[in-house]
Amino acid sequence: MKHTKVIEVLQSDQLLQPVTIKGWVRSFRNDRFIAVNDGSTINNIQCVIEDNTINQEIVDRINIGAAIAVSGTLVESEGKGQRVEIQVSAIEIEGDANPEEVKKTILSPKRHSLEKLREQAHLRVRTNTFGAIMRLRSKLSYAVHDYFQKNDFHYVHTPIITGSDAEGAGEAFKVTNMDLNNIPKDENGNIDHSKDFFGRETNLTVSGQLEGETYAIGLGQIYTFGPTFRAENSNTSRHLAEFWMIEPEIAFCDLDGNMDLAEDFIKYVIQYVLDNCQDDLAFLENRLVQEDKQKPQAERSEMLLRDKLRFVLDNNFKRVSYTEAIEILKNSKPNKKKKFKYPIEEWGADLQSEHERYLVEKHFKCPVILFDYPANIKAFYMRLNEDGKTVRAMDILFPGIGEIVGGSQREERLEVLQEKMAALDIPEEDLWWYLDTRRFGTCTHSGFGLGFERLVLFVTGMSNIRDVIPYPRTPLSAEF
Amino acid sequence: MKHTKVIEVLQSDQLLQPVTIKGWVRSFRNDRFIAVNDGSTINNIQCVIEDNTINQEIVDRINIGAAIAVSGTLVESEGKGQRVEIQVSAIEIEGDANPEEVKKTILSPKRHSLEKLREQAHLRVRTNTFGAIMRLRSKLSYAVHDYFQKNDFHYVHTPIITGSDAEGAGEAFKVTNMDLNNIPKDENGNIDHSKDFFGRETNLTVSGQLEGETYAIGLGQIYTFGPTFRAENSNTSRHLAEFWMIEPEIAFCDLDGNMDLAEDFIKYVIQYVLDNCQDDLAFLENRLVQEDKQKPQAERSEMLLRDKLRFVLDNNFKRVSYTEAIEILKNSKPNKKKKFKYPIEEWGADLQSEHERYLVEKHFKCPVILFDYPANIKAFYMRLNEDGKTVRAMDILFPGIGEIVGGSQREERLEVLQEKMAALDIPEEDLWWYLDTRRFGTCTHSGFGLGFERLVLFVTGMSNIRDVIPYPRTPLSAEF
Repeated sequence: MKHTKVIEVLQSDQLLQPVTIKGWVRSFRNDRFIAVNDGSTINNIQCVIEDNTINQEIVDRINIGAAIAVSGTLVESEGKGQRVEIQVSAIEIEGDANPEEVKKTILSPKRHSLEKLREQAHLRVRTNTFGAIMRLRSKLSYAVHDYFQKNDFHYVHTPIITGSDAEGAGEAFKVTNMDLNNIPKDENGNIDHSKDFFGRETNLTVSGQLEGETYAIGLGQIYTFGPTFRAENSNTSRHLAEFWMIEPEIAFCDLDGNMDLAEDFIKYVIQYVLDNCQDDLAFLENRLVQEDKQKPQAERSEMLLRDKLRFVLDNNFKRVSYTEAIEILKNSKPNKKKKFKYPIEEWGADLQSEHERYLVEKHFKCPVILFDYPANIKAFYMRLNEDGKTVRAMDILFPGIGEIVGGSQREERLEVLQEKMAALDIPEEDLWWYLDTRRFGTCTHSGFGLGFERLVLFVTGMSNIRDVIPYPRTPLSAEF
Repeated sequence: MKHTKVIEVLQSDQLLQPVTIKGWVRSFRNDRFIAVNDGSTINNIQCVIEDNTINQEIVDRINIGAAIAVSGTLVESEGKGQRVEIQVSAIEIEGDANPEEVKKTILSPKRHSLEKLREQAHLRVRTNTFGAIMRLRSKLSYAVHDYFQKNDFHYVHTPIITGSDAEGAGEAFKVTNMDLNNIPKDENGNIDHSKDFFGRETNLTVSGQLEGETYAIGLGQIYTFGPTFRAENSNTSRHLAEFWMIEPEIAFCDLDGNMDLAEDFIKYVIQYVLDNCQDDLAFLENRLVQEDKQKPQAERSEMLLRDKLRFVLDNNFKRVSYTEAIEILKNSKPNKKKKFKYPIEEWGADLQSEHERYLVEKHFKCPVILFDYPANIKAFYMRLNEDGKTVRAMDILFPGIGEIVGGSQREERLEVLQEKMAALDIPEEDLWWYLDTRRFGTCTHSGFGLGFERLVLFVTGMSNIRDVIPYPRTPLSAEF
């Protein structure tokens, strides 16, 4: 018999009709009440066994984690917590779950730490928390495509394996097909990359921007959404070695247009999940409330999760130049009282996480867009301002997350770009194709990169980035 | 002044209103008619300069490839080929394009071979053909997400860097952060992978299926859409070392349901581009007609591009068991006349491209789903049939493309799977997490993989897979 998804059954008005559902047992009380979940929603369907209708041999196999098919009649529920339930007429066990073995896993019905759940990342999606996170992640991804496609951006798959490390700064992973026990060498004893699969050194991409620019100068408006890699030895709750990045690039668009786009985009995807993921958000919100109860008052969140999301929608992001920000920081209490690990002494200092957090969480108390940074702390492709010392860069900083977007208006003037590359010892022959975009119909253009996992962190209220991607990749960890 | 996209201007009813567009010069005739394209559509907007309204110095810089901003009045066109045009009042040059330098590139207005265009892959998106292909690719991608999201599938980002090569069969690229000039060795002289970034050997994924299965057994219905890699030395028009793959995985779904899903999915995305990409499809269709004129009658297409797409929509895919297919092939003319390079002699033979093409293009003349293949020519995770010698595999074969989908019902029985792995020397400790899905609530489940570029090939009518991805990665080639 064809089965129906639990999410549909829960919304159904077809009372007293026969129904079949399939899913996994989440709980079984009094040999009577089975809570079944099939992943379509965070909510379980309650299935009620009447006395002696089901063979005891079957009842004995209804254990937590087992896969079962339940047929019965949809009826109004007399119990609390659900509108409808299934009056069971037949149960089939699709796959058992031995209670003794389940006990050793995170499927067992007790509180497990997030660390423990990470060790069993292949099972954690079967918990309420990770089911909610991963459904939200999926919906957020779709919102990303939805936004750009509705605004006539073209999705571009920039290459993952790249021949250049211009942007990598030594933080790119190498990709090779060579036998590492027997690396081919040339007559001088150097590695002979011509013998490798691609006939050259290759790396995993650290950003699709440069290739994205070549497409924007032709297709007009493009975006990427793909995996990106950094071999950075950062064991923090905000860094992954493999993460997904969204990078729009727009021809005939300056930094103001870029900031407008980023703000509009972020608000759209947040509105989208508020509209489409109420149940999962409500669960995660409550999870945070419970978590906060364990914390001292001072560390508790000031806002509920959904209020925090609505706050972002209802307020303009505060746009502040780097120069203004330095003034604010210089005169701030923590700076004067030497509470910053890196005191702000003068214009030109690179901002650390502690400074960003002060600006966002203490001073402005809202998302902040910082722009016009000193040229020498930013990348070579950012457009030089008339002052000759700042570039048209912008970063968006979010409360609790820090930098969520980094973008800029690009340097569209060939000579200025060449000078900058020369000063930084970036060989022109490595980026001949990138420079061509400035040779043939160059134009004002801008773009940004948004780290997708940081967005998921913000929306789910989770605090470790390893908990918002199915199988996190971090230093010394690539299990599964 | 704010500018308007060309696609909007071309559809506008705001006659006699001022308008500004920005884009690249595609042609300039008689010092009067400029065709401008901004990538939003394959169609150009014609901009007409009245005598002496534009400074000659500016007019001299209106060269093919230059980026310009044109302001003027939208008027009905008196010429053929367009409904509206812009009566120019002002032109600004955003970026020049030196005609002497343009001549050396594929931007120059003459026919360039596809090989030549590949060498300048950073510029080819500015040609009509590649603009059309890449817009179609973007729309097809969106249709993929649209289909699965509307059918309640959850998008899962399976890892790109993996710790296991169970599926790789030696065709996986290695990922490392070690200094290749100085590879760390242990006391026995073996490579010490514990010193590498992830503390173990790591590869680029060849498929997200196994991780996808762990998510389906929990979230119910999932799909992946991400890059996949094969270090296969195949220099053909159908293989890439880096390609994008779509892999749905569905709990409580058998092989029939899997075939239904694949067929429904393919028809949906084809219908989507027919509905949303008329102009680009019309252009590519005409391109093929022109190309065919250069060919001998026998090699020409029997159907126009869009008719071929509609044909797929209007006909059921023919479902044929491997055993039936072997009978058909054994008795076929080319087999009897020894025209096949690999003659079909008996049941159990692996099907080659020539056989697949015969079945699809000569015998059935429609898309074909072959199923129930011999176990020993298919992967370890496919469900063994009751006959003990075939597995619940299915491949979908398309005319001109060959295999576009490969899928199966998965072996959900722990012991059968373990036996199969033992027979193939796949260590259980490498896939302990995969086996766990069979230990805790295993269930009937199925899935398939669709090579996205092959779908784009089919929809665009292109014949080389390198021409449907922005920057193709193939043996000895990873430029850009």
